[in-house]
Amino acid sequence: MASAIQHYRHGRFRVAGGVLPDAVTAYCTYGDPASPCIIFPTCYGGRLDSQDYMIGPDKALDSTKYFIVTLALFSNGESSSPSNTPPPYNGPYFPDVSYEDNIRAQYAVVTKALNVKKAYCVVGFSMGGQQAYYWPVMYPDFVERFIPICGSARTSMHNKCFIEGPMTALLHSKDFDHGHYTKEPQVGIRAFGRAYSAWAYGQAWFRQHQYLMGGQYCSLEDFLRHEWEGGFLGVWDANDLITLIRTWQSGDVSLIGKGVFSAPHDEDAFKTALAGIKAKGLIMPCKTDLYFPPEDSEFEINLMSNSSKLVVIDSVWGHMAGGGSNAVDDEFLKTEIRKFLEE
Amino acid sequence: MASAIQHYRHGRFRVAGGVLPDAVTAYCTYGDPASPCIIFPTCYGGRLDSQDYMIGPDKALDSTKYFIVTLALFSNGESSSPSNTPPPYNGPYFPDVSYEDNIRAQYAVVTKALNVKKAYCVVGFSMGGQQAYYWPVMYPDFVERFIPICGSARTSMHNKCFIEGPMTALLHSKDFDHGHYTKEPQVGIRAFGRAYSAWAYGQAWFRQHQYLMGGQYCSLEDFLRHEWEGGFLGVWDANDLITLIRTWQSGDVSLIGKGVFSAPHDEDAFKTALAGIKAKGLIMPCKTDLYFPPEDSEFEINLMSNSSKLVVIDSVWGHMAGGGSNAVDDEFLKTEIRKFLEE
Repeated sequence: MASAIQHYRHGRFRVAGGVLPDAVTAYCTYGDPASPCIIFPTCYGGRLDSQDYMIGPDKALDSTKYFIVTLALFSNGESSSPSNTPPPYNGPYFPDVSYEDNIRAQYAVVTKALNVKKAYCVVGFSMGGQQAYYWPVMYPDFVERFIPICGSARTSMHNKCFIEGPMTALLHSKDFDHGHYTKEPQVGIRAFGRAYSAWAYGQAWFRQHQYLMGGQYCSLEDFLRHEWEGGFLGVWDANDLITLIRTWQSGDVSLIGKGVFSAPHDEDAFKTALAGIKAKGLIMPCKTDLYFPPEDSEFEINLMSNSSKLVVIDSVWGHMAGGGSNAVDDEFLKTEIRKFLEE
Repeated sequence: MASAIQHYRHGRFRVAGGVLPDAVTAYCTYGDPASPCIIFPTCYGGRLDSQDYMIGPDKALDSTKYFIVTLALFSNGESSSPSNTPPPYNGPYFPDVSYEDNIRAQYAVVTKALNVKKAYCVVGFSMGGQQAYYWPVMYPDFVERFIPICGSARTSMHNKCFIEGPMTALLHSKDFDHGHYTKEPQVGIRAFGRAYSAWAYGQAWFRQHQYLMGGQYCSLEDFLRHEWEGGFLGVWDANDLITLIRTWQSGDVSLIGKGVFSAPHDEDAFKTALAGIKAKGLIMPCKTDLYFPPEDSEFEINLMSNSSKLVVIDSVWGHMAGGGSNAVDDEFLKTEIRKFLEE
């Protein structure tokens, strides 16, 4: 249903932390290019095929009605990343990349390679939800609607602090070797997964023993070993995991154009950025999300001058509620997103 | 005001994970031994002198009215710990110790060394709060009142999972060396602190930029470096940090007498254990505590057959609200605790 993975070559591409001499954005398309375009970028830990949970005639994003473009974040292993960039910008020498860099690259793909004139909607989950804010701030006349799911217009201080945990566990591990590992740093990746795990779901989810996944696992330890060590081992490169976190930590729409890794916090610029959004938003945080809690979304929506609306996902699945983790939340998202797209 | 630190020698002492050939419990006393006795054990990261924030004529526990006994957990560096036990039980060879072992040892101190006949109250914060549950379950006719502050009668699955994060960051670090380090494993301890930090406070606390501590720090990074790396470096032994977490993870009053590191989960036994408490409890979770959330306390208090009451600390300080972190919460605790003790 999806196209084969396409690669857009940007050539020499400036990014916040330096330059990518031959930057590539990987993407896929679904449906008829003449249909209204929906842009759907990846999240942390996401690959292009991870996006399938939302795309299809019977899903939230109907590929028979819309031309859907999925785009891979830099550092996800498909677009330019530490793991796939040749020397001298390989591995630990890959520069820091901002959300702004990503969206600028994605805009080039959508407008130059695909010749899209307007985005009917930008949708995203988690880091994808953050990109869904960047798009209408950076290109206010291009984007008509946006749907951030479990995301925010800037990475909160708490969020920055929490993600520092798994990142440091990997950076300080016995086999990461400052990114110069010559074989997979399994010890570090396992530590990363474990230090991450408890953040992804709400406390009530654990209280209900949902980590047993309906009998798939026999204990918390079994769950952690399979899902949070096994989920990254052999699949994710350690330097990719690190640079993608740096992008995440840098998220803040008020810093667009300011050199994101050095600019000071500016509350007024944040308000101005959100007030400048022309697109209509459907803001969907999850009630029990420990890193993008609804309170941040409430604050942000109050800074927008348009008719955006807030719809909270009432789920114990925490952050994962928006990521295709369970049928009930998937159905809720589908219903709300379809209604919003047809309004 | 406090006595000098005393050391009670248990001799050969069986613990859940083996034996301590010459176990020591460190403790202090405050006030007149003829006054009603209040027992106040330490928390994770706590030393005997950490208890001073609650003790004094003008504080929650008035040492002119009560005979207060503070007791150090095994593995806190003052009672028997990996760091102070001679070979062959030193460092990584120190056995796993349960809460039950700790309370049995503390009971010996209080009854044999101090000749106390009744505990007027057992008070504790965090791991101390968990001990405050163990006391009335293990010695129902000895304890009259108990006050768990930001604690629970068993360590929730979410709590076990979260604390796995900082623990694994240290265990997998480049210098921990399976506990055989010959100098302080600074890299591991720093990773431990960072992976721990975001759990200790609520999201709102970060949103209010409280990590700047009223100007003491200039950034989140500054705060993490000083408080969460510096707070452990040179002060806490890495093996002590690990074994103390194993005690924490094993917390569950339903497992008393059953070999805590192997017994299966038993919901009925948990209900029976809580229903058997005769002491009157003042249960004080914090509204924004990410690891001992009020929902767990509500569940637990409903299993108790007596007149215990729940008073939630309404604070953005998260878990730290109960640990002497700020004057407003300290005052609230003082008022509620004094009222309860005088009822």
